[in-house]
Amino acid sequence: MDFTANIIAEFLKGTVEGDPEAKVSDVSKIEEGRPGTLSFLANPKYEKFLYETQSSVVIVNKDFQPQQEIGATLIRVENAYEAFADLLHLYEQNKPKKNGISKLASIAETAEVGENVYMGEFTVVHEHARIGDGVLMYPQVYIGDNVKIGAGTIIHSGVSIYEGCEIGAHCVIHSGVVIGSDGFGFAPNQDNNYKKIPQVGVVIIEDHVEIGANSTIDRATMGSTIIRKGVKLDNLIQIAHNVEVGENTVMAAQSGIAGSTIVGKNCMIGGQVGVIGHLTVADGVKIAAQSGVTKSIREDKAVVQGTPSFELGHYQRCYVLFRNLPDLKNQINELERKVSELTQ
Amino acid sequence: MDFTANIIAEFLKGTVEGDPEAKVSDVSKIEEGRPGTLSFLANPKYEKFLYETQSSVVIVNKDFQPQQEIGATLIRVENAYEAFADLLHLYEQNKPKKNGISKLASIAETAEVGENVYMGEFTVVHEHARIGDGVLMYPQVYIGDNVKIGAGTIIHSGVSIYEGCEIGAHCVIHSGVVIGSDGFGFAPNQDNNYKKIPQVGVVIIEDHVEIGANSTIDRATMGSTIIRKGVKLDNLIQIAHNVEVGENTVMAAQSGIAGSTIVGKNCMIGGQVGVIGHLTVADGVKIAAQSGVTKSIREDKAVVQGTPSFELGHYQRCYVLFRNLPDLKNQINELERKVSELTQ
Amino acid sequence: MDFTANIIAEFLKGTVEGDPEAKVSDVSKIEEGRPGTLSFLANPKYEKFLYETQSSVVIVNKDFQPQQEIGATLIRVENAYEAFADLLHLYEQNKPKKNGISKLASIAETAEVGENVYMGEFTVVHEHARIGDGVLMYPQVYIGDNVKIGAGTIIHSGVSIYEGCEIGAHCVIHSGVVIGSDGFGFAPNQDNNYKKIPQVGVVIIEDHVEIGANSTIDRATMGSTIIRKGVKLDNLIQIAHNVEVGENTVMAAQSGIAGSTIVGKNCMIGGQVGVIGHLTVADGVKIAAQSGVTKSIREDKAVVQGTPSFELGHYQRCYVLFRNLPDLKNQINELERKVSELTQ
Repeated sequence: MDFTANIIAEFLKGTVEGDPEAKVSDVSKIEEGRPGTLSFLANPKYEKFLYETQSSVVIVNKDFQPQQEIGATLIRVENAYEAFADLLHLYEQNKPKKNGISKLASIAETAEVGENVYMGEFTVVHEHARIGDGVLMYPQVYIGDNVKIGAGTIIHSGVSIYEGCEIGAHCVIHSGVVIGSDGFGFAPNQDNNYKKIPQVGVVIIEDHVEIGANSTIDRATMGSTIIRKGVKLDNLIQIAHNVEVGENTVMAAQSGIAGSTIVGKNCMIGGQVGVIGHLTVADGVKIAAQSGVTKSIREDKAVVQGTPSFELGHYQRCYVLFRNLPDLKNQINELERKVSELTQ
Repeated sequence: MDFTANIIAEFLKGTVEGDPEAKVSDVSKIEEGRPGTLSFLANPKYEKFLYETQSSVVIVNKDFQPQQEIGATLIRVENAYEAFADLLHLYEQNKPKKNGISKLASIAETAEVGENVYMGEFTVVHEHARIGDGVLMYPQVYIGDNVKIGAGTIIHSGVSIYEGCEIGAHCVIHSGVVIGSDGFGFAPNQDNNYKKIPQVGVVIIEDHVEIGANSTIDRATMGSTIIRKGVKLDNLIQIAHNVEVGENTVMAAQSGIAGSTIVGKNCMIGGQVGVIGHLTVADGVKIAAQSGVTKSIREDKAVVQGTPSFELGHYQRCYVLFRNLPDLKNQINELERKVSELTQ
Repeated sequence: MDFTANIIAEFLKGTVEGDPEAKVSDVSKIEEGRPGTLSFLANPKYEKFLYETQSSVVIVNKDFQPQQEIGATLIRVENAYEAFADLLHLYEQNKPKKNGISKLASIAETAEVGENVYMGEFTVVHEHARIGDGVLMYPQVYIGDNVKIGAGTIIHSGVSIYEGCEIGAHCVIHSGVVIGSDGFGFAPNQDNNYKKIPQVGVVIIEDHVEIGANSTIDRATMGSTIIRKGVKLDNLIQIAHNVEVGENTVMAAQSGIAGSTIVGKNCMIGGQVGVIGHLTVADGVKIAAQSGVTKSIREDKAVVQGTPSFELGHYQRCYVLFRNLPDLKNQINELERKVSELTQ
């Protein structure tokens, strides 16, 4: 499907500079531009690629001032990055979607399935589960008894959702995610072995949540593990029993939150972070990658680093000195020598 | 199903204080109590919730002395936490269990399947596998050739067990777990690429082991990777080839043990810990979260922290000084100034 | 199947010392040797086991000089480890392989499937996918639209490959791996929530790559996430969108590479390492386990450690001093006392 620069500019309410009939049928990064593709330039660090790109059309910011000649046709818009993202959304929305319920899916008679649902081969829906309108479920998904899936949610292949858990509307759950597995709850016996504490709670995932591939979210011991509206979790993340993650918090890959910790809203948690159990993390907190949080963070918008973590600027000053410990040691030894001379 | 305070007290050999006919049909945490639910109070930190809870019945320790008036009916027992756990077990045991073998499961003719087995839709059992009595296998499980599953073990949806591995009795394997994948064994060639070392060993998992969602346990190069009786592994854990994890050791989420390391019994390993290969860790060792163990730990009940890890108390003293390095640097500079004055 | 020491020696071009008719039917580690098994001795640390092993035949290096009497028959070869690995390969190649396409697999009419393919039960191949000759696909694999799998590749049970991704020839993909899930791309809105950036790129995996169980490789935002020829990834690894991992680089378990980072060839990355986004890592770089790389590494063959990481030898000197901070603090306090005396 070809689009001209003119048509794209019209859609974006932008202006064309160059050939208004230049045609594109695909998108590319500006540094990997090919003829017939559309790119964008937003970050000034990439400006140099604009002068050599093979892309036919490039979206730029309204006020961009080129320093050299440009082969590509330009489309000037208010915000090049947002405009490009809007086009990608349009492209996604117009892609043909999977639809219909495969004859090879297995749906319990007591389950309720909404309108316009896609259900792939070998997907299983157990008793009394309720699947909302417009849900897409790829092959080999497992939906346990009494699970509820909200309208418009996409569940990729190989996801397992244990009984009784609830997923909101317009969520995206990537392949291999496990929701509702037992929390890690064991009581030690006198003879050094462990007795399992039955985990009778559930997981509740609110609307507009995205969960990355192979992440795991455990059910509560009692009550609910809760992922609030708009949370975005990357791949291979662990959310333990009775955790609550606040609205619009984002967590990068391979991080984990231990049992019963409450994380605030609008937090940004880096990759490979660990937060121990039974803590509270305030709203808008940022945690640097690989940090280990061992105490509650009560101040909104705190920024922390380290294991155990503390204020990021302070951490970084300490770390600079850590790197200079050999010099510091020399400085001390030199002082010792001088003092020793003075005391003789 | 309703129970009265009286009936519960009888089962627990406890005494009722308040309305013996108070009815409950569900459980709740004391801080989230609702009418018609049963809660417990064991940790004194939660005592304040007892005076405001909406729970109808609360289990407390025999010697508990209330400081205010209480709306709920109390049941006094020897150990409130254990009594509550016993009730949860009773509740679990009485829940209807999945049963029967789905017509949509695929079982090789040479496989042996015991009595009272549940096998969900699209589960696959390959040649000569042996499934013990009372095993529950949820949908979409894969059991390779010659695998053996002990009696009463529960295998959740989407688990993969490669050929030749053995799982003991009364284990719980959560969704997405992979058992018996190839160990990471490659020999470098002269031209910088790697030749795979075939991994011809297996994995042996003894009785009463629980393995958390999406954990991975690699088969041995030769011989066996062994998870001993009573071990509890949390989610997203990596156990490499030829590792042995000793009896009743517990590991928190996202930890990993590298190849050929032998971990003792009754150890407690925190989250996101790494232990490098070819080490020995003694019995009863505790490893703090996010630590990296790079040398064998030969002393029983050692407690370590850090990367590389050393004795925990020592680590924590060092870390306090790390946090104070800016002050320490100022102290040294001040000394230098004074000594410089003295030597002029 | 029994082999005599003589036949094995002939295959390996080695010489027999002891009973040329000694028979073996299995392999074992020298420290776990059983009658009827073949072992090898390469690492001098294991020499003591040679004098007590029950293995019937042991392969040793040509120039090995025993210090005691040995019960086993020896086969002397140029390189005992390589010779043994060659035998394991022979053993693997001669094992009966799975073959044929299960009637319970589901293959779209528009998909192309090569010769001599194995496809297990409940595996799904969607529209226009192309499966090369000799591919082995275990049960419950999901292959999305337009995916291409190269000849001779092995895909274990429960793998998910999203639409449009390409896997090379002679790769091994272990169970639970997810390839082509959406990159973690979200643009913040003014009201603190996030708008998804559609991820329209793909993943390209070149030939001879091995990917460990439950690892995740995200598709590019645009263009391709690329895993070059000969790369070996261990279990539970995260590769983010638009990352490129260079030829023959190896990564140990639970490591992660954030978005758009380019890793060179022949690198060795330890377990639980994190590399942040938009960096470049030169060729032949080694990164110690649990390190966090926060700046590009431009020097070939650099060796780094720490979070943030820097040169390994320097890091280790700093860490020794970190462990001695309590002594250093005492040294400083003692100096302060002396200087204070001098200034009075």
